[in-house]
Amino acid sequence: MERLDELARIGRFPGRDGSTRPGLGAAEQEACDLVEGWLADEGLAVSWDGAGNLFGRLPGSDPACPETWTGSHLDTVPNGGRFDGALGVVCAIEAVGRLAGDRARSTVAVVVFRDEEGWRFGRGFLGSRAACGELTAAGLALGDADGISVAGALAALGHDGHAPGSPLPGTFIEVHVEQGPVLEGEDLPLAAVSSIVGMAGFVCTFHGSAGHAGTVPMGARRDAFAACAEFAGLLRERSLAIAGSVATIGDVRIAEPAANVVPGRVQASVDVRAPTSEALAALVEATPALAREAAARHGCSSEVESSWRSEPVTLSATVAGALRNAAEELGVALPELVSGAGHDAGILAAAGVDSGMLFVRSLNGGASHRPDELSGEADVAAAIDVLAAALRAAR
Amino acid sequence: MERLDELARIGRFPGRDGSTRPGLGAAEQEACDLVEGWLADEGLAVSWDGAGNLFGRLPGSDPACPETWTGSHLDTVPNGGRFDGALGVVCAIEAVGRLAGDRARSTVAVVVFRDEEGWRFGRGFLGSRAACGELTAAGLALGDADGISVAGALAALGHDGHAPGSPLPGTFIEVHVEQGPVLEGEDLPLAAVSSIVGMAGFVCTFHGSAGHAGTVPMGARRDAFAACAEFAGLLRERSLAIAGSVATIGDVRIAEPAANVVPGRVQASVDVRAPTSEALAALVEATPALAREAAARHGCSSEVESSWRSEPVTLSATVAGALRNAAEELGVALPELVSGAGHDAGILAAAGVDSGMLFVRSLNGGASHRPDELSGEADVAAAIDVLAAALRAAR
Repeated sequence: MERLDELARIGRFPGRDGSTRPGLGAAEQEACDLVEGWLADEGLAVSWDGAGNLFGRLPGSDPACPETWTGSHLDTVPNGGRFDGALGVVCAIEAVGRLAGDRARSTVAVVVFRDEEGWRFGRGFLGSRAACGELTAAGLALGDADGISVAGALAALGHDGHAPGSPLPGTFIEVHVEQGPVLEGEDLPLAAVSSIVGMAGFVCTFHGSAGHAGTVPMGARRDAFAACAEFAGLLRERSLAIAGSVATIGDVRIAEPAANVVPGRVQASVDVRAPTSEALAALVEATPALAREAAARHGCSSEVESSWRSEPVTLSATVAGALRNAAEELGVALPELVSGAGHDAGILAAAGVDSGMLFVRSLNGGASHRPDELSGEADVAAAIDVLAAALRAAR
Repeated sequence: MERLDELARIGRFPGRDGSTRPGLGAAEQEACDLVEGWLADEGLAVSWDGAGNLFGRLPGSDPACPETWTGSHLDTVPNGGRFDGALGVVCAIEAVGRLAGDRARSTVAVVVFRDEEGWRFGRGFLGSRAACGELTAAGLALGDADGISVAGALAALGHDGHAPGSPLPGTFIEVHVEQGPVLEGEDLPLAAVSSIVGMAGFVCTFHGSAGHAGTVPMGARRDAFAACAEFAGLLRERSLAIAGSVATIGDVRIAEPAANVVPGRVQASVDVRAPTSEALAALVEATPALAREAAARHGCSSEVESSWRSEPVTLSATVAGALRNAAEELGVALPELVSGAGHDAGILAAAGVDSGMLFVRSLNGGASHRPDELSGEADVAAAIDVLAAALRAAR
């Protein structure tokens, strides 16, 4: 918990109680440098790859044997909490530290992946994608709001962008906060993650006709916000009818908003997520259809642009089994959850690595991406115990 | 039409096709100065009052007889059209010019009221309120975005703020564009205005709980935008059930909007208008109740702050009769309409002046407060004919 506090002080700007560590920025680098010292203190062999990913290796007896990795990320969302990402790194150091005396064939490594959150350059999972050889020229050319490219940011930190520096491991285990209210609601400390939901993003634009709030009768209006509001209700109903799915309208912008003007154009973000490809496809198909239906009810038209889509990823049943066995021996119940957020483990799983995740209960109603994000010390200790035992079994 | 074009060039800024003449600003003053010349060309006696209102008088034979005024305003909304306000001034000059040879007891005057739109200082009808002796110290102290007060802006234009400069007239007639689609829909050029709707403004805030778009199940959400969208639907239904009323949500702001975050707080403007006090009261009472109902359905709370309210104003039946008689003689049908927007005529009516309005058909679907605001030349010519005849009858 002290290490989490120490990391949280990096990127804590005046007037904000959370931490802000954009991917490939100075604060994320400072956090990595701090962790580099902790890795060395544990006697691990430290290295960096071309994407700035940080490794701390405890060598096994057989260099030809696929490695076992555990870790997470140290970048944060703007004004983020102490646990998201950092918890998985700190738990990994503790757990790998306990394996120091073991005799095992497989090298085990703590790994810190860069820029998981992705808000600076508009695309997440930079480090894990790079480790999987998926960092393309186009990905290196993405720019931030100041026009700095991924390649430029990496070069400024002394990294050449030529990842991967290591072969992929055989197994990857990531500890992460749940970021949701389920474990708190069930009064359980930990869960194994069975899969990561599929997700898709859209930008929906409703076109109506701007008008004077006093002089256009209700029946003659083409109110773009009325259409958007109707769409929000329809999309919500549809998501409630598809088990395990969620739909979010998180960003709504009225063009030239004014209290006395009927909105003529409204743009809304849509984020849909579902645990199966079928459910995701159903929501993805429904989105433009429901927008059209809502628009038509208000004499408006709609335009739906697909921004991104990723299919659900099934995590390794072998790793989940190892986590479950470890938990059982420690007398901890380990339910399975589907992750509603994307994680580096999903990138490695999609690339063929046996990947698993251990979720730690989020308190405060599952508060996430906020300064009041919280997990309890006992839950964190249990996560380290389970992780260490599972890593031992996986080597 | 040439004079409207000439006025429209004042305050036309690069890159915008409309005119921007904030009340008590340089562009409004330039427009007034131009009109001052036109008034003098008609042989009218020009004067200004302490609020910067401009008068052009054609004296009657009896100075003790209450005056008859006609006019409107020359300020505009940002990027506004050519007709709103300016049409009433230009028609007034033309109509009063035709009365030059008449022998009549009552003095007739063209009047230009300042800052009708009110967006610069946050309160409309400055000039007409001043003429009615309603410009208070608090009103003079209101500041614009640059911290310039009404009193300061008046002083910079050489006006002392000590209105009224003249006794109120017995009669006031204002020509104005309809700003709505009704006359275009009925294929009629003109209407007499029977009353001005009552109006009220609110700021509604919905408080929920921000959360991760992927990890908070639909059933566990307290989505403030979902509450706001539900409220929009309920308010719309309620307004549709109250004859002649309208309700508009024109400005919606999500606190810290992000595509992947469930909105935790949303603020929405509400503008309700109704032709009778009873209907207005029903909508005003419904607003917080419906906000509460919508919030409750989504586990949110609501807060509704009343910003302003004005009761409906009945215009003079005598003036409407004079307009109708004049139209009849000219072979023009003259239906009665309720004005959904506030006007200087409403201020004078509330102060006891026999006030009437003549609406001119708005083309382009009733486009208003937009550069494509349009009225036809023949309709404008008919309005001048009707106005001149009604003024003649009213003296």
